[in-house]
Amino acid sequence: MDFLRPDTVMDLNNIRAVLIRMEDTIVFNLIERAKFPRQPSSYQKGGIAIPDFDGSFVDWILREEEIVHAKVRRYQSPDEVPFFPDDLPEPILPPISYPPVLYPHPNKVNVNDRIKDFYVSDIVPSICPEGEQKENLGSSSLCDVECLRSLSRRIHFGRFVAESKFLMERETMTAMIKAKDMAGLDAAITNSAVEKQVLARLKKKAETYGIDPNLMSSPNHKKVDADAVVAMYENWVIPLTKEVEVEYLLHRLDQED
Amino acid sequence: MDFLRPDTVMDLNNIRAVLIRMEDTIVFNLIERAKFPRQPSSYQKGGIAIPDFDGSFVDWILREEEIVHAKVRRYQSPDEVPFFPDDLPEPILPPISYPPVLYPHPNKVNVNDRIKDFYVSDIVPSICPEGEQKENLGSSSLCDVECLRSLSRRIHFGRFVAESKFLMERETMTAMIKAKDMAGLDAAITNSAVEKQVLARLKKKAETYGIDPNLMSSPNHKKVDADAVVAMYENWVIPLTKEVEVEYLLHRLDQED
Repeated sequence: MDFLRPDTVMDLNNIRAVLIRMEDTIVFNLIERAKFPRQPSSYQKGGIAIPDFDGSFVDWILREEEIVHAKVRRYQSPDEVPFFPDDLPEPILPPISYPPVLYPHPNKVNVNDRIKDFYVSDIVPSICPEGEQKENLGSSSLCDVECLRSLSRRIHFGRFVAESKFLMERETMTAMIKAKDMAGLDAAITNSAVEKQVLARLKKKAETYGIDPNLMSSPNHKKVDADAVVAMYENWVIPLTKEVEVEYLLHRLDQED
Repeated sequence: MDFLRPDTVMDLNNIRAVLIRMEDTIVFNLIERAKFPRQPSSYQKGGIAIPDFDGSFVDWILREEEIVHAKVRRYQSPDEVPFFPDDLPEPILPPISYPPVLYPHPNKVNVNDRIKDFYVSDIVPSICPEGEQKENLGSSSLCDVECLRSLSRRIHFGRFVAESKFLMERETMTAMIKAKDMAGLDAAITNSAVEKQVLARLKKKAETYGIDPNLMSSPNHKKVDADAVVAMYENWVIPLTKEVEVEYLLHRLDQED
């Protein structure tokens, strides 16, 4: 799946295949997080006191790993959006040789704060039992980081979808962008039939991957609540992706003229 | 699954449940890695030149993330074994309050170099197509790091298995340990029937999780080769776990007298 090869990255069929594959990654990550209870103190500022740091325990791990990954150019890749863009060092490797594919370039659309908000307030409580296990705070937080990253990548992939649609309907969309017609853009990018398919597909994935196939007869062994996974897509992932698409399109022509 | 609660960590049923659950994690991680080609340069020393670092690209990411995780006490947890134990800083948090459960304490059994060797030489070629995609070197390396960590945790969990068996057969095993009777210890920890069950269970998991359940009719959509996953357990994971168990037991009494 060569989704980052410059010559195929804007093929809408390719983008759709990547989005479908990302569902598996997200479901896997949620299943892993659901092993642990909610761990409220890991999300609270100062819930675990960290020297010289003002955020939560999960924030700290996320930021420190982003600092490591930034050094090897992770955030020069057009499909990666950091949660702590202001805290990142310059890469220690030569710049990545990747042609601009999103416009304006570099692209600044970033809804990661909102992703973190819905993840902590809504998703963790819907997939994890109440409670806290001090011994596993590190393990659960590392799962959080993986969940947040895969959700962020999925939702910000809306920029590729939007660019691809823009290239196909350049004239109509240019007019809408110039008129700041957000409702028109939203209608142009919405495909309700596809959204229903996404939810149906996701339910089947969460059910299948969420049960050990060797324990099929024992219905208590569900590793994740499939309905919660579907609700997350319906209430958060799909709407936020569409917001990202509209936001992307509104600024699509900023560098022109 | 409270596998790190001190009061239940030595219950063999609990340990077995954790080992079974780890299979899912390992299969998920291999499926993620198999999205990418083999990426040989990411495993070669100097394959990607990194300033002031002598190892491979994957080594660099693994080590830098271990440095981050060590600061929040990851490697004070008895089930975590680092790949770069000599490069880690002191934690920035107060010491973890976890009673000794493995002996001698702290326990030094570490086969991570061998895990990295078989993973790079045998597993990556068996699950990934030939080739290299420069654009995805970072993504594939992050998958490698997850694979290596989950394999390391699984294989070193042999120490908990061994300790649990030791507690159940203290007298016989003490005699074998004092006689350095490795063959006897190996026989005492081996259960061929259980090993066969593991392989059968694993095949079903790799087949189930490795196929998008919405694309069942299309046999080309296997995300990972189930036979390669089974072969990895048969040729590497199970034998190395048993070596870890024997090694653990040989030193079990070092701190006594």
